[in-house]
Amino acid sequence: MTFSVESKGVYAIAATPFLDDGSIDFNSVDSLTDFYQDSGCTGITILGIMGEAPKLEPEESRAIIKRVISRARIPVIVGVSAPGFAGMKSLARTSMDMGAAGVMIAPTPALRTDDQIINYFAGAVDAIGDDVPWVLQDYPLTLSVVISPGVIANVISNHPSCLMLKHEDWPGLEKISKLRAMRKSGELRPFSILCGNGGMFLDFEPERGADGAMTGYGFPDMLTELVSLFAQGKRDEAHDLFDAHLPLIRYEQQLGIGLAVRKHVLKRRGVIASDAQRKPAQMLTPTARAEVDYLLSRVARHDKRAAV
Amino acid sequence: MTFSVESKGVYAIAATPFLDDGSIDFNSVDSLTDFYQDSGCTGITILGIMGEAPKLEPEESRAIIKRVISRARIPVIVGVSAPGFAGMKSLARTSMDMGAAGVMIAPTPALRTDDQIINYFAGAVDAIGDDVPWVLQDYPLTLSVVISPGVIANVISNHPSCLMLKHEDWPGLEKISKLRAMRKSGELRPFSILCGNGGMFLDFEPERGADGAMTGYGFPDMLTELVSLFAQGKRDEAHDLFDAHLPLIRYEQQLGIGLAVRKHVLKRRGVIASDAQRKPAQMLTPTARAEVDYLLSRVARHDKRAAV
Amino acid sequence: MTFSVESKGVYAIAATPFLDDGSIDFNSVDSLTDFYQDSGCTGITILGIMGEAPKLEPEESRAIIKRVISRARIPVIVGVSAPGFAGMKSLARTSMDMGAAGVMIAPTPALRTDDQIINYFAGAVDAIGDDVPWVLQDYPLTLSVVISPGVIANVISNHPSCLMLKHEDWPGLEKISKLRAMRKSGELRPFSILCGNGGMFLDFEPERGADGAMTGYGFPDMLTELVSLFAQGKRDEAHDLFDAHLPLIRYEQQLGIGLAVRKHVLKRRGVIASDAQRKPAQMLTPTARAEVDYLLSRVARHDKRAAV
Amino acid sequence: MTFSVESKGVYAIAATPFLDDGSIDFNSVDSLTDFYQDSGCTGITILGIMGEAPKLEPEESRAIIKRVISRARIPVIVGVSAPGFAGMKSLARTSMDMGAAGVMIAPTPALRTDDQIINYFAGAVDAIGDDVPWVLQDYPLTLSVVISPGVIANVISNHPSCLMLKHEDWPGLEKISKLRAMRKSGELRPFSILCGNGGMFLDFEPERGADGAMTGYGFPDMLTELVSLFAQGKRDEAHDLFDAHLPLIRYEQQLGIGLAVRKHVLKRRGVIASDAQRKPAQMLTPTARAEVDYLLSRVARHDKRAAV
Repeated sequence: MTFSVESKGVYAIAATPFLDDGSIDFNSVDSLTDFYQDSGCTGITILGIMGEAPKLEPEESRAIIKRVISRARIPVIVGVSAPGFAGMKSLARTSMDMGAAGVMIAPTPALRTDDQIINYFAGAVDAIGDDVPWVLQDYPLTLSVVISPGVIANVISNHPSCLMLKHEDWPGLEKISKLRAMRKSGELRPFSILCGNGGMFLDFEPERGADGAMTGYGFPDMLTELVSLFAQGKRDEAHDLFDAHLPLIRYEQQLGIGLAVRKHVLKRRGVIASDAQRKPAQMLTPTARAEVDYLLSRVARHDKRAAV
Repeated sequence: MTFSVESKGVYAIAATPFLDDGSIDFNSVDSLTDFYQDSGCTGITILGIMGEAPKLEPEESRAIIKRVISRARIPVIVGVSAPGFAGMKSLARTSMDMGAAGVMIAPTPALRTDDQIINYFAGAVDAIGDDVPWVLQDYPLTLSVVISPGVIANVISNHPSCLMLKHEDWPGLEKISKLRAMRKSGELRPFSILCGNGGMFLDFEPERGADGAMTGYGFPDMLTELVSLFAQGKRDEAHDLFDAHLPLIRYEQQLGIGLAVRKHVLKRRGVIASDAQRKPAQMLTPTARAEVDYLLSRVARHDKRAAV
Repeated sequence: MTFSVESKGVYAIAATPFLDDGSIDFNSVDSLTDFYQDSGCTGITILGIMGEAPKLEPEESRAIIKRVISRARIPVIVGVSAPGFAGMKSLARTSMDMGAAGVMIAPTPALRTDDQIINYFAGAVDAIGDDVPWVLQDYPLTLSVVISPGVIANVISNHPSCLMLKHEDWPGLEKISKLRAMRKSGELRPFSILCGNGGMFLDFEPERGADGAMTGYGFPDMLTELVSLFAQGKRDEAHDLFDAHLPLIRYEQQLGIGLAVRKHVLKRRGVIASDAQRKPAQMLTPTARAEVDYLLSRVARHDKRAAV
Repeated sequence: MTFSVESKGVYAIAATPFLDDGSIDFNSVDSLTDFYQDSGCTGITILGIMGEAPKLEPEESRAIIKRVISRARIPVIVGVSAPGFAGMKSLARTSMDMGAAGVMIAPTPALRTDDQIINYFAGAVDAIGDDVPWVLQDYPLTLSVVISPGVIANVISNHPSCLMLKHEDWPGLEKISKLRAMRKSGELRPFSILCGNGGMFLDFEPERGADGAMTGYGFPDMLTELVSLFAQGKRDEAHDLFDAHLPLIRYEQQLGIGLAVRKHVLKRRGVIASDAQRKPAQMLTPTARAEVDYLLSRVARHDKRAAV
């Protein structure tokens, strides 16, 4: 499956595994890549906000891009958000040259008016080239840029190379409905919507018109199963699965320590060797770790994958 | 039970009921007050952010304060946050004269440095008088003021009239642990901590040192039961109850439409006559209402109170 | 001269004079009102951000509105920005009943998207009534709401009762030019533009299309002279006058202590009895006061009005 | 003169000259470097916010660092603020290896509490190494991080390698006074203070305790003369010179178009070949350019350097 306006399923937001000494753990990069694929993910997104991208030196970023792309048999998207268009262009070009399927761009935090946002993405597309497929990341909670449905529609119409919306506005269900209504009425061309926010509303987003999820929850195999249940119309079953995981999904959705939870779970699942983060990092306290483990044990009553 | 540093249990954040024509529905004010009491709440907080306070004219605010206090047999706290100290002083004085147990104060959004925050609360206490008991509201997500544990400790130490922290930082579990460690070491005097954020982390907050919740979730009877289960050390039972409600708690915790969900649930439970809000209001779309009803039906499988 | 889309000249942003004990100094309210009129001002704006409005109790606000309106022979505008539409409506109604020429409304700080801003002003007009003439205040630096020229045009077109823009964006010269070009092309109906920001760019704003100033600089008589010089086409003379005052204008344009400078100057000019502010207040240190006095002495070399 | 806690005078914030085709104009880099030196500057700061650093690809940044350092006989400071410590470390190491005198670090915009700010700079020093001399940039208006005098004192005390404060808080005069009082009382060790904000308050900052300016105003020769006049105690003469330039200083201090003004002036003075900026750029409209030229002609009546 390629990266296109028809993309569905789950794109995993990849963590970046480090060894305890802070160096990149390339073996775990491999096993993590395999894990995402084996979990049924239809794509992988690397160097996003949760991928500790700003903690990587330029050559390290390139090494990770190369490693993941060379191993993955599914599309790889590279986060290229940067303080300036020069850095964005440079990273996008490198990524595409290495075989990336596309890039992901978030608005720079200073943007306020509709015009500023529209112009920003025009500048970004001008910088990376209009032949580079990209994902528009809409994440007001962290980026403090609020993008109305009309502005998203405008950007999508202006730029045929924008294939997908990473939707993580909160609340955001009505936004999906509005965008899909615009699509239905012919006001908007086809485009894919994958949802973020750690999956916090993935029990309703597919019915609103989302094509799946792009998030890094420690159980991507559960996410793919969930999206598949919705595709089969098995609503109650989907909610049962979702509700079993929600306490952990919710716990992971804590800004700052969410990545620590995620790495802890991936380590306990045997996917990465260490839950080390590069500084600045918020690590789990022993109490927090015990809470996560308790949640895992509770999830395991319904989902054996959590019995780790 | 009085409002004191020993306060425990659940303080309900009261909605303000309106009739469909926008006027205050005083009959529903009464039934809502009764409902909170009958649910086992140990206090009621009125005119908070979720109480549509800014949509009330001054004489309406006074009428509501009077009505709730005259009916309630539990302590009533009045939200008195205001753009200036004059308005805060005026409302606090009126509330105390009418028999309020205390007031709640949130920091004004422009505050940034530790000194600014400490000075702001000193000014507020100076304005309302140091004999008026008050609750410090710590709510960064909405107020954009970030208060470190050290600053909270400072404010509590400076002002003996500050009896309680309304804790709704996110993530916030470690903050509770830190404040309670300072209490244990004798660095801090006794004070109560009740948690907000719609109850999203109430499955762990009591064990971290919180005394209960101050929030407006549509099932305050479930909140009081939950806090009671923790008090009895029935951890698993508490989590079972919490997990059954979490999908709805999570749905309600959507900035902007959360109040609409809450009023819809209270109406369906027969507590208020109408789910009307004054403008500006975000109402539930038919799809959203159906989602809430579906969640209610799912909660009802575990908790009969949700079978409405 | 009435308050209309043809309004020109200088609307003084009125300070609120207090006695040293913190009570309102109504004698100084009178002398200040006279002073603004005698300085050639064509209007007075009261209870704006610099009028310490949030430090006034409701009955005090009403007393000031009454006092100024009863004494002034020029239009009086009342600032009615409030956290909610109920308070805005109440204050606007009171003001108009007392004889105000109109009201001034600033956007609430949480607004981000174009639609949110447009809807906010629609809600405000709905609340105060579409027969109440009003001024749209555009002040991003303090309010953190950025309003594009297109959105201003939209609001002006939607609401015939919006007669004037208080323009204090920074940088803002191009915004004036854009709005005036839209007016010229017939895209926009007539409306008045008065500029704020303490007069910091009043040496170029009239040529860009502004009709004058709405600001509280301690020399309103100089502002009216300046606007008049531009009206007569005496460009160099206007700049000579402006440049003589710019060091003081600039000093006054310091967020937080600007009001202290302004009151100090008004007191030294004999217009108000005391430079007292209500708390929370930033007062001038002795060093700062000496700096202002030194600047006054330097201005006095060119403008005798500053020899105080 | 070296970069040290004793540094005085003017550090020029260097523009980055481009040719009209967008490539770096290295001849102008040379002439600009010479110009700063010949103007009496005691240092040069490159790749700051006004140096279009985010628009440069990594190899271009390195080329500019190399070029300026190899030509300058005065200390060169390199701006190394970055979204992550890895990028900061990498750029700092490169700069020092090439012969930079030190680096400049601004806080990342998300910081709020005192502890967060203090920890951020601890992390930065840990990343670049505690042997790398650095300048702390305090610029709330653009960075939205507010640093109290106590926090600055804390950072300076924690890190002996912090030699200088780039002070551009606004209002900021009292902050200088407070820090210098802490120095005088022995609470703080020696450190240099150079002021930014385009020089808007440089008529009072030296008397408050500043050692000079670090800013990019198009007349660095005037800035050095001004600082020198203050050093000689020629207060009135200093103010005469400052006041002659203030209308232009003020015009240049417009966020967004300030750089366009600066490059236009430098071009008209014959220092750089083109006023081109890389995208995204705000260019001067013909009206704005005419305004700047008019201001230059007015400055020229008092200062022949402006007769261009």
